[in-house]
Amino acid sequence: MAIHHFEPTVYHIAIGAHEPVLHIDSGDTVVTTTVDAGGVDAAGEQVTEGGNPQTGPFYISDAASGDTLVVHFDRLVPNRKMGRTSTVIAPHVLDAQYVASNLPESGRGDWEIDLDKWTATLVSPETSLGRLTLPLEPMAGCFGVAPPRRQAISTATSSTHGGNMDYRGFCEGVTVYLPVFVDGALFHIGDGHAIQGDGEIVGTGIEISFDVQFTVNVIKGKEIGWPRAENNDYILTAGNARPLDQAVQHATTEMVRWLNELGLEGNAPHILLGQCVEYDMGNVYDPAYTMVCKMKKSILRDIGLNLEPPI
Amino acid sequence: MAIHHFEPTVYHIAIGAHEPVLHIDSGDTVVTTTVDAGGVDAAGEQVTEGGNPQTGPFYISDAASGDTLVVHFDRLVPNRKMGRTSTVIAPHVLDAQYVASNLPESGRGDWEIDLDKWTATLVSPETSLGRLTLPLEPMAGCFGVAPPRRQAISTATSSTHGGNMDYRGFCEGVTVYLPVFVDGALFHIGDGHAIQGDGEIVGTGIEISFDVQFTVNVIKGKEIGWPRAENNDYILTAGNARPLDQAVQHATTEMVRWLNELGLEGNAPHILLGQCVEYDMGNVYDPAYTMVCKMKKSILRDIGLNLEPPI
Amino acid sequence: MAIHHFEPTVYHIAIGAHEPVLHIDSGDTVVTTTVDAGGVDAAGEQVTEGGNPQTGPFYISDAASGDTLVVHFDRLVPNRKMGRTSTVIAPHVLDAQYVASNLPESGRGDWEIDLDKWTATLVSPETSLGRLTLPLEPMAGCFGVAPPRRQAISTATSSTHGGNMDYRGFCEGVTVYLPVFVDGALFHIGDGHAIQGDGEIVGTGIEISFDVQFTVNVIKGKEIGWPRAENNDYILTAGNARPLDQAVQHATTEMVRWLNELGLEGNAPHILLGQCVEYDMGNVYDPAYTMVCKMKKSILRDIGLNLEPPI
Amino acid sequence: MAIHHFEPTVYHIAIGAHEPVLHIDSGDTVVTTTVDAGGVDAAGEQVTEGGNPQTGPFYISDAASGDTLVVHFDRLVPNRKMGRTSTVIAPHVLDAQYVASNLPESGRGDWEIDLDKWTATLVSPETSLGRLTLPLEPMAGCFGVAPPRRQAISTATSSTHGGNMDYRGFCEGVTVYLPVFVDGALFHIGDGHAIQGDGEIVGTGIEISFDVQFTVNVIKGKEIGWPRAENNDYILTAGNARPLDQAVQHATTEMVRWLNELGLEGNAPHILLGQCVEYDMGNVYDPAYTMVCKMKKSILRDIGLNLEPPI
Repeated sequence: MAIHHFEPTVYHIAIGAHEPVLHIDSGDTVVTTTVDAGGVDAAGEQVTEGGNPQTGPFYISDAASGDTLVVHFDRLVPNRKMGRTSTVIAPHVLDAQYVASNLPESGRGDWEIDLDKWTATLVSPETSLGRLTLPLEPMAGCFGVAPPRRQAISTATSSTHGGNMDYRGFCEGVTVYLPVFVDGALFHIGDGHAIQGDGEIVGTGIEISFDVQFTVNVIKGKEIGWPRAENNDYILTAGNARPLDQAVQHATTEMVRWLNELGLEGNAPHILLGQCVEYDMGNVYDPAYTMVCKMKKSILRDIGLNLEPPI
Repeated sequence: MAIHHFEPTVYHIAIGAHEPVLHIDSGDTVVTTTVDAGGVDAAGEQVTEGGNPQTGPFYISDAASGDTLVVHFDRLVPNRKMGRTSTVIAPHVLDAQYVASNLPESGRGDWEIDLDKWTATLVSPETSLGRLTLPLEPMAGCFGVAPPRRQAISTATSSTHGGNMDYRGFCEGVTVYLPVFVDGALFHIGDGHAIQGDGEIVGTGIEISFDVQFTVNVIKGKEIGWPRAENNDYILTAGNARPLDQAVQHATTEMVRWLNELGLEGNAPHILLGQCVEYDMGNVYDPAYTMVCKMKKSILRDIGLNLEPPI
Repeated sequence: MAIHHFEPTVYHIAIGAHEPVLHIDSGDTVVTTTVDAGGVDAAGEQVTEGGNPQTGPFYISDAASGDTLVVHFDRLVPNRKMGRTSTVIAPHVLDAQYVASNLPESGRGDWEIDLDKWTATLVSPETSLGRLTLPLEPMAGCFGVAPPRRQAISTATSSTHGGNMDYRGFCEGVTVYLPVFVDGALFHIGDGHAIQGDGEIVGTGIEISFDVQFTVNVIKGKEIGWPRAENNDYILTAGNARPLDQAVQHATTEMVRWLNELGLEGNAPHILLGQCVEYDMGNVYDPAYTMVCKMKKSILRDIGLNLEPPI
Repeated sequence: MAIHHFEPTVYHIAIGAHEPVLHIDSGDTVVTTTVDAGGVDAAGEQVTEGGNPQTGPFYISDAASGDTLVVHFDRLVPNRKMGRTSTVIAPHVLDAQYVASNLPESGRGDWEIDLDKWTATLVSPETSLGRLTLPLEPMAGCFGVAPPRRQAISTATSSTHGGNMDYRGFCEGVTVYLPVFVDGALFHIGDGHAIQGDGEIVGTGIEISFDVQFTVNVIKGKEIGWPRAENNDYILTAGNARPLDQAVQHATTEMVRWLNELGLEGNAPHILLGQCVEYDMGNVYDPAYTMVCKMKKSILRDIGLNLEPPI
């Protein structure tokens, strides 16, 4: 149950079986930092190339292919004053006919982060939004483990191993579950957003460097198909694919499997999800889109299911 | 501002330019009923063929092509004791490989509705869910106006005219806006659900007959592209298409247009939506899927926009 | 086996259960004309509104729901000298990023048709293509029967009933099979193209009025799921949906069913299609796209299948 | 212009920046072999793990990021007597409802290859197809160069770098053009099919080991976006994505760009493609699907374009 303070010096824009930056054990905690999506750190220095550079990979000593890695996000907080966004919705998120005639030019939006007030304020460009001020909702846009087949997958996209899911629900306090494909799992994390709308439809949240603390565990011999997570109120599964319909299929199937594991057999998970399921939309900007399938823990507890973690 | 008590005797399973059942004026209120998706009424009688039969159409005297019809859902409440669901997730909402090997048989679920306790309770089949009891969230699965080009469009699907969107947010208290394509608009409504999970992934909510009351208004000369709505907290737009990606495109483009109409020009709606937009998923069972794009009214008011209805 | 010479005076831009223009019997032949997609006839007169207006519907006396209508295209030939195209690829057929920056303006292309030389020649606009001259390949862009559920479906799209499939293979000499949903089947035809690229990616072929002759038959009690056809070399099935993936699913499933009917059971049609299937792409411009699945008759005959028409 | 005889000993199931197996120069020819998709060589020995193992990578000395690699397929011929297929269409290529109820079990099909008669004959399982005999059409299912961002991408899928496109047109005599992302380009090739239906809808062609000969060239400073190719009759572009609609967008946009490079500006490529374009369907089994956009060389020559290779 060691606590490791780790200062990154290398970053990766593809998630793969890179040389581990640190070996840790199940139960250990890592306190570290991430640079922003453009490779700029807390001091405003460009320290690596852009494209969602990841801190890591961290080698978890007892993780092996066929296990599940459990990562609890202890702390996810911006660590500098200025964040950046794009200023135009991605053309593939709008009607093609609209794009052909009405799309404004893209530019750069600058936002001032106030951690005391817990707000982000638009400082440029000048628009009719004025100094739009929004409450912070910090989240990790991209994290994951080394994928199967000795692949290294761009941090601009996502798949079964996690990756750039840009889901608002991956925030401090959440526990995520990832399938392990290689020895040590090789956990990466980066692409912090101070705030983000659903879908990351402009291709950015408010991009900013982060202070990060996470704690890992391993569930030996438990295989899952897609990233899972839980927070206080929900269990949830993430499907990553395009079109979004297929992301829905992956997330829903993984949720049925999870409910099977929790003890609901036959038609029971189908009847339950039919009237109670909720979906949130993650990234619709990347090559792979993300859809999240959710079930309320309170309903699962009412049925008598045991939700003691790790679940 | 008349109040019309209307008892339906004919129903339609395609939304089109059928003979109006009632002529009403802008400002009028209609108190009526709908049968359930299977054509069964409050007394449990099969009074028409199944397939989301609609009450209506109602001819609104001052509505003409190019206008917007405003419908406020004054009251949407189940009016009998038993509702029905399917018991298996639709195969196209699950992974094809899972469907090929694991899909349980479909059947019929029966639910008892208690309007005093405001609950629905599963009474059959017997599963490990036991007598699962859920709070009611009544909503209208299908409503719309006669579509363009003299089409009559099945109530199993949806498009610019509305139709079978199966969105949980279309509930009592909501105001919906529909594009008018023909004289009189020809409003239809039906397919009430006592409860429904996001996506209507089993192909049904808890299907039940409803008491319905709505009030209509017309915005002359205002053209909209897709159904819009507002509730206390949000303005929202619905895009109907397949794949879901295209529904996202329609809903997002319509929201940009609405923000343009409210006074946000150039990059302003893009910057705003980028960090504040929310999406809800409607029907993913039908030929056309539904995605809903939402903006919080409180943020729009903070920017100084005038949200006096009709907006 | 009567031959009917029919001169149309009304046209329809939705395919539905309209008043029949002519009652005919199984075995009868109809000699008629179609106007172009814009509603302009052989004399260059605008005789009806644009949007793929259809000649018909023709009521086939012995056709009833659950039967299959057989239509042989005896003759499909342009009947005037000038045709029209659009001049820009539809934005939804190009990369969104390309559309946002590079799309040329749309305009109108004029083509001169020479039936003696069997060519179409571009006469305007002036481009580096000069007087591009192409061999004619006349085809019917849109035809179909009244759809189920008392729908009337826009001639801008397609479904199980046929509609705007814009497939180059629907030309003179082909026999098409359509599912019958209503008494009389109610056959419509229009939208002739002198030539068309795969996909109708500019939203038009060379749009022109046609002389049309077709002969109908009915297969009593035979139900098919999607339009089928045969020519000298192939049997083929058309799936109509979006995304194109789903059109592939419909067309492939219908071909498996057809091979089942022809006597191939179990894995046989799967093994055969796996190594021999061919696909052609129909319309990718409409709300519903079209994909055509094809099997060579020579291979089917080699296996010993009986392909005597009607099949 | 050296000829290299290379006997592979390592294989890769992800295309990436692996250690080169051979350094060659522009103009050189390589004579080598590939194992089948399951990792079995010409002698019937399992020499590596399955999953489309690739021979290579070959380092082309003068290729650098931003260049185009030209690969001429001099020879692509099966080099053993037995090939293998799957025996059931992939569930995601069929209607979900059909899959839920009608899908036969998958198994293994064995085919005997006769290079003298140039045929493949089904030898098992026993079905009503009997000893179905088809003419050989050998092709390379998977080839490509190291992708950008230091990715290593599974040979089960495809993208801008090539990969598992499973297109029947990638056969002996064809010249392919690939974008270069890393020094040396790092060309891989494998997954030979003796025959394959369009779409590789059963997930396999007739999988077999190959004798392969190819000749490489480099076009310095020429950037392309997607794989291109030419044969005697056509120039063609391949788009790789899901859904198929997006593959169409990529392939069509790349063809417009190619026609721009050949001298057609403004609306000219749009008008031309509108009436002359053809599409072939590649893989619809993989995570990314493939669509190929084609233009007849004879038409391009008629317009006066210079098609001297390399184009």
